[in-house]
Amino acid sequence: MLKKKIYQFININSSFQKLIYTLIILNVISLILASYKEIYIKYELFFDYFEIFSVSVFTIEYILRFWTADLDYENGTSFSKRLKFSTSSFGLIDLFAILPFYLPLIFPFDLRILRILRLFRLLRIFKLGRLSKSLQTITSVLKETKSELSITLFVAFILMILSSTLMFFVENEAQPDKFENIGQSLWWSVATLTTVGYGDIYPITGLGKFLSSIIALIGIGFVALPTGIISSAFIKKMQQEKEQNKEHICPNCGTKF
Amino acid sequence: MLKKKIYQFININSSFQKLIYTLIILNVISLILASYKEIYIKYELFFDYFEIFSVSVFTIEYILRFWTADLDYENGTSFSKRLKFSTSSFGLIDLFAILPFYLPLIFPFDLRILRILRLFRLLRIFKLGRLSKSLQTITSVLKETKSELSITLFVAFILMILSSTLMFFVENEAQPDKFENIGQSLWWSVATLTTVGYGDIYPITGLGKFLSSIIALIGIGFVALPTGIISSAFIKKMQQEKEQNKEHICPNCGTKF
Amino acid sequence: MLKKKIYQFININSSFQKLIYTLIILNVISLILASYKEIYIKYELFFDYFEIFSVSVFTIEYILRFWTADLDYENGTSFSKRLKFSTSSFGLIDLFAILPFYLPLIFPFDLRILRILRLFRLLRIFKLGRLSKSLQTITSVLKETKSELSITLFVAFILMILSSTLMFFVENEAQPDKFENIGQSLWWSVATLTTVGYGDIYPITGLGKFLSSIIALIGIGFVALPTGIISSAFIKKMQQEKEQNKEHICPNCGTKF
Amino acid sequence: MLKKKIYQFININSSFQKLIYTLIILNVISLILASYKEIYIKYELFFDYFEIFSVSVFTIEYILRFWTADLDYENGTSFSKRLKFSTSSFGLIDLFAILPFYLPLIFPFDLRILRILRLFRLLRIFKLGRLSKSLQTITSVLKETKSELSITLFVAFILMILSSTLMFFVENEAQPDKFENIGQSLWWSVATLTTVGYGDIYPITGLGKFLSSIIALIGIGFVALPTGIISSAFIKKMQQEKEQNKEHICPNCGTKF
Repeated sequence: MLKKKIYQFININSSFQKLIYTLIILNVISLILASYKEIYIKYELFFDYFEIFSVSVFTIEYILRFWTADLDYENGTSFSKRLKFSTSSFGLIDLFAILPFYLPLIFPFDLRILRILRLFRLLRIFKLGRLSKSLQTITSVLKETKSELSITLFVAFILMILSSTLMFFVENEAQPDKFENIGQSLWWSVATLTTVGYGDIYPITGLGKFLSSIIALIGIGFVALPTGIISSAFIKKMQQEKEQNKEHICPNCGTKF
Repeated sequence: MLKKKIYQFININSSFQKLIYTLIILNVISLILASYKEIYIKYELFFDYFEIFSVSVFTIEYILRFWTADLDYENGTSFSKRLKFSTSSFGLIDLFAILPFYLPLIFPFDLRILRILRLFRLLRIFKLGRLSKSLQTITSVLKETKSELSITLFVAFILMILSSTLMFFVENEAQPDKFENIGQSLWWSVATLTTVGYGDIYPITGLGKFLSSIIALIGIGFVALPTGIISSAFIKKMQQEKEQNKEHICPNCGTKF
Repeated sequence: MLKKKIYQFININSSFQKLIYTLIILNVISLILASYKEIYIKYELFFDYFEIFSVSVFTIEYILRFWTADLDYENGTSFSKRLKFSTSSFGLIDLFAILPFYLPLIFPFDLRILRILRLFRLLRIFKLGRLSKSLQTITSVLKETKSELSITLFVAFILMILSSTLMFFVENEAQPDKFENIGQSLWWSVATLTTVGYGDIYPITGLGKFLSSIIALIGIGFVALPTGIISSAFIKKMQQEKEQNKEHICPNCGTKF
Repeated sequence: MLKKKIYQFININSSFQKLIYTLIILNVISLILASYKEIYIKYELFFDYFEIFSVSVFTIEYILRFWTADLDYENGTSFSKRLKFSTSSFGLIDLFAILPFYLPLIFPFDLRILRILRLFRLLRIFKLGRLSKSLQTITSVLKETKSELSITLFVAFILMILSSTLMFFVENEAQPDKFENIGQSLWWSVATLTTVGYGDIYPITGLGKFLSSIIALIGIGFVALPTGIISSAFIKKMQQEKEQNKEHICPNCGTKF
């Protein structure tokens, strides 16, 4: 039962998992460091070797997971089980993490940008048991508020289109280089409604400033609305949990009510 | 019963509605693209033809809706029903969407800016059934908190007048070109209280920075207040819904009600 | 009973109140317009006359209110009632609104900046009945959360002192003109923690950016905390009101429970 | 019983405590003032004397507290009690506040930066009874939401790594001096997600602005999530307190419990 042993090794053995997690984090650090030109030039060889090493480990892991995938699911043929693994979100992440390394061997493109896909392996950390309960609360809250949040986002989107078109017509003449087109104007409206306000683009005419003030004030409501929606969902969650735990028993007569 | 068939065609037939929605979205995209000078010059003719085509479709739709409006409402004379449609918010939006095209034929003004009115047709998307429930929740929440939110806005307005007048007297001497008048100062106070902070105008004197710090800190409360109000209204809503679903049982006689 | 008639005239007659409110708003507008140099020079005489007129009306109103103050309160001697009025918040606001006009007649100082005090008359609008209920809700919420909010403000203050001292030591060498002293550094920390971010001062060293990132992230919690406190107070308020209205009566047997 | 008298003097006597608090605040003010070069040069001697005076008082206080520590705890030997005091958070703060003054006498380093540690003495203000209840509410709320907040922070961290890597690849070519490496890119992502937006670094390419818009919108959710979590925890707290005050009555037998 080599397969079963390997399956347990890669799934239960914590030192193997620690190795993988360490390698993921080292990959993130290496990606960041390699973006510093002076460091990259100095240690180019090291980065290349580390790249080959990481991809090798991840490839071996992927192959082993693919091979032992039929122990992971209960029903289905061995082929359908492997297909299930390949198309599961973690299976796809694992594949995308190694694919960019092999593609250039076939296609003569510069796909170094795809190395960014390896970052998604960070998401694997959510598999850790300790984190999963809090994460579940958060995701269930987000799921429950999905329709309200999408409406808010949609209203925000319409607001952005409207306000940026308006500002384009108002400011274009005074700042033809800044409010050059509605695209630039949209960039301004995002920066304003999210209250980021980089300061690279802002109205200078009186009317523009007046309209922009109104839009910025609406921006606060735009922040308040999702916050209110999410807050109420968290409170609902909390009350549901409390209600499930509650069962009133009279300490005198023992009646449940 | 041609009228009834047409009424059903424009109101129930989903492929006709899809066409209208598609045309609205294409109009938005065309408005955005036409704001890019290089694109507009290259495809000027195309934009003009698309303009004529859209307005024709919207005009025909408006005429049909106006004609069949008497099937839309139950009571009243055929004239009062049509008046009702014309003055309903969607009726007005539909009219304003096509009017700017016809006005220049009568008045010799450049009313291209009014094409922006066509954007309001985007609001029609809220007629879609799926969206309406979530939107109802949000609008009912906003309605319920209207008086609290207006008070907050009003207090914010007084705060802005006060702080910008103050800052004008404090900063005017040091930066006569930036804090030129209270109008400019108001622009600064909006940018600060909404925490947008473009960075085109800010205090440079010690006293100005001190006052500005206090105003910025109040700005946080200014964000917190509407968020709190909206949150509590969402929670109230949520609890009302729960209560309506709950069965009341009298502990005395056991009657459900 | 001339006094009683005058008392009713200034307190109940709505056209007199409308005049006063209009005059207050016109004063605000005049203050804003007079800050535009080109407008002020052109209409200097008009502004002066309007000033004299407004102060005259406000002075007469103050004298009448002072004179009829003994009808406003139930207990006390006529002197103690007038003292009560003079030291009440609205009595003081009314006095401060006219005082800056008379002071220069006695003291030879330029007190034009004190005209800002007249802005506080805007607060009188809160006397209006319609506004008072919502305002009461908000002020009672703010009162109830006073101790939590002050703690938050105090923690924020300590955080600001700590972070600005830290940033001063870290950035002073690299930007001796920006992070010149801890005062400048404090200005930076306010702009960062309130997420205003004007962009006139920011770290440029690696360590400075790292520390600043952490401080900015804490800044979000700094916004979340008062929002959470205020939200919970609004909800408490709302539930109290609901509970007071509630009285469960069984529709079958009439038992209250 | 000199020791007992001293213990009561430093712990209960309010005028001694007032002296210490005043000295702490004067130290903070002195640290801020000394950062102004022109002030420091003028009053260097004064600052030095005040430094020696403060450290002397703090040292004497520390020695007395250390000596009387055995009266502070009930159990343990006199040595273990003193160790307990030395390793308690307030004991450590008090030690760190004076240590930087004595270290240079032994080690020849410039440790003036460590004077910042004295700022932590400000935290002692939380010992004051009046403040402690509100602070307890806030800290208990933060403790209860620790796991949700850390998840949010962790997700935010992953988001930052992902978005800054993405933006580095997108913007690096157009602005090699701004988006120089992923470190700079991370600085941008912090400024954007926290909505601070200093404006020292922002995307200029179309794709960069598009991605940045999405990231900024997510940033709002990133603010909404902790706010929602903290709000719900405050409400839970509030309801628990209410429930503890409430009398339960069994509807069957009428017993209060």
